[in-house]
Amino acid sequence: MGFTVDQSIKSFDGRLLKLSHKSEVTHTEMAVNVYLPQQYFAEGSKKLPILLYLSGLTCTPNNASEKAFFQPYANKYGFAVVYPDTSPRGANVAGEDDSWDFGTGAGFYLDATEEPWSKNYRMYTYLLKELLPLIGKEYERLDTTNISICGHSMGGYGALMLYLKNPDIFNSCSAFAPIANPSNCQWGQKCFGNYLGSDKAKWAQYDPCELIHNFKGEKKPILIHQGTADNFYRRDHQLQPENLVKAAKNSPLDGLIDLKLVDGYDHSYYFISSFVADHCAFHAKYMGLD
Amino acid sequence: MGFTVDQSIKSFDGRLLKLSHKSEVTHTEMAVNVYLPQQYFAEGSKKLPILLYLSGLTCTPNNASEKAFFQPYANKYGFAVVYPDTSPRGANVAGEDDSWDFGTGAGFYLDATEEPWSKNYRMYTYLLKELLPLIGKEYERLDTTNISICGHSMGGYGALMLYLKNPDIFNSCSAFAPIANPSNCQWGQKCFGNYLGSDKAKWAQYDPCELIHNFKGEKKPILIHQGTADNFYRRDHQLQPENLVKAAKNSPLDGLIDLKLVDGYDHSYYFISSFVADHCAFHAKYMGLD
Repeated sequence: MGFTVDQSIKSFDGRLLKLSHKSEVTHTEMAVNVYLPQQYFAEGSKKLPILLYLSGLTCTPNNASEKAFFQPYANKYGFAVVYPDTSPRGANVAGEDDSWDFGTGAGFYLDATEEPWSKNYRMYTYLLKELLPLIGKEYERLDTTNISICGHSMGGYGALMLYLKNPDIFNSCSAFAPIANPSNCQWGQKCFGNYLGSDKAKWAQYDPCELIHNFKGEKKPILIHQGTADNFYRRDHQLQPENLVKAAKNSPLDGLIDLKLVDGYDHSYYFISSFVADHCAFHAKYMGLD
Repeated sequence: MGFTVDQSIKSFDGRLLKLSHKSEVTHTEMAVNVYLPQQYFAEGSKKLPILLYLSGLTCTPNNASEKAFFQPYANKYGFAVVYPDTSPRGANVAGEDDSWDFGTGAGFYLDATEEPWSKNYRMYTYLLKELLPLIGKEYERLDTTNISICGHSMGGYGALMLYLKNPDIFNSCSAFAPIANPSNCQWGQKCFGNYLGSDKAKWAQYDPCELIHNFKGEKKPILIHQGTADNFYRRDHQLQPENLVKAAKNSPLDGLIDLKLVDGYDHSYYFISSFVADHCAFHAKYMGLD
């Protein structure tokens, strides 16, 4: 099944498409936004790379589309941006709407193995096996062999996790204030425990601080920005990017976690948008666009 | 009475302040956001110009702060941005919340003369006699003798109207999809009729297409962007920027309405943000910053 184009909005000489489609993986209707830069519409242009951007807890595809401000840079370099949703919605699983940090809006980009979540909460397979192939099929001038990944908070964890597990699929990875060590913080423990059960070996299959030891890809830096005034970082210890820097030692990515602590920034889209230009330049280099 | 700083958020090396204060003009609590660029915090910097940005129907100071994306350019050139609210809120005037295009969120930047609006709905006097002086008093490194003005939709009308009436206060003016001829469209007629009564001579005191004939300021261009896919423009005729171009003929600003019709853009913040860089460059020139 293809996409329904719910809206097509001109933005920075390109177009932001608000799409929906029936997912056979999550068994729900899924929303996704896709930004096609001006180059996509130019005669005879070559295939364009894709930046997959994963949003944080509670977000829909619209938040980042409106506030993160990738579009001008995507349009400058010539790559598309894909903004998936953060979970299935309307799966009607009992309890899915009870808290903001679990269930709806908090799919954690993994495949749940525990009941009652395992039927619908399968964002990992949804992204890799359904959404990206469908994007490639429906938008033939996008190059699904040249995909980079980025995300914020829960989506920053998602970007790190997906990249570390799939260096054959993703070119380069960056993150804003990622949940870098989910096994070791409340948000991650709640989601891993409910979605995956109590077996820590299963948690390790999704934790960037574990996955980094077995990374099989090229030795490229991973760019991470973290604001020092982010309460989820400094007060609540939900993010812990230093744990990833530490885990990288004696891993194939030793010294390659480029963690930039930026003074005074919080966890909001005001923080993300302030550094989006840097992340786009970083990815453009690995996409072969700079 | 000074401002209460409800939030101070780092954004592009500067700070977005979410402020509130008790207004003696509207007799309500008023919200306003102020973006101070990095230059404001630099030692020994000279006073910085101000861009007053007026938002459209229904907006609070937060919409444009999050989605219009002035901050990176304000930070580049070195000017502050002031985002006032679009009306008093919580005035408790009967009927003020009945429709989205009148009352709360739709103050039309004028001083109502009709009951029951005339006590609170006085955005014109609020902006010029209370807010801007208070900004100057509380933020001494901002230069209230160097203010430019810009706005969107209802706020585009507000920018044109305030500029044309007060060339002694405002340096330069630009607008996104302004309600250029409010006496001649439904939105304007509803608000002017309710706030000002039926006397068309009073309407003329706020209609850019009338005011332009008596403009007393310097002959500078006014920059206007209008998207051709904007339904309020092409279908509903609420905006009519061509009427201002026509009115400018045989006025002191003959030939100086720089109306740019931009193909395929709508009325949203996706449209505004796509051309904010152009508007900031335009104002920076007249602010003496380019």
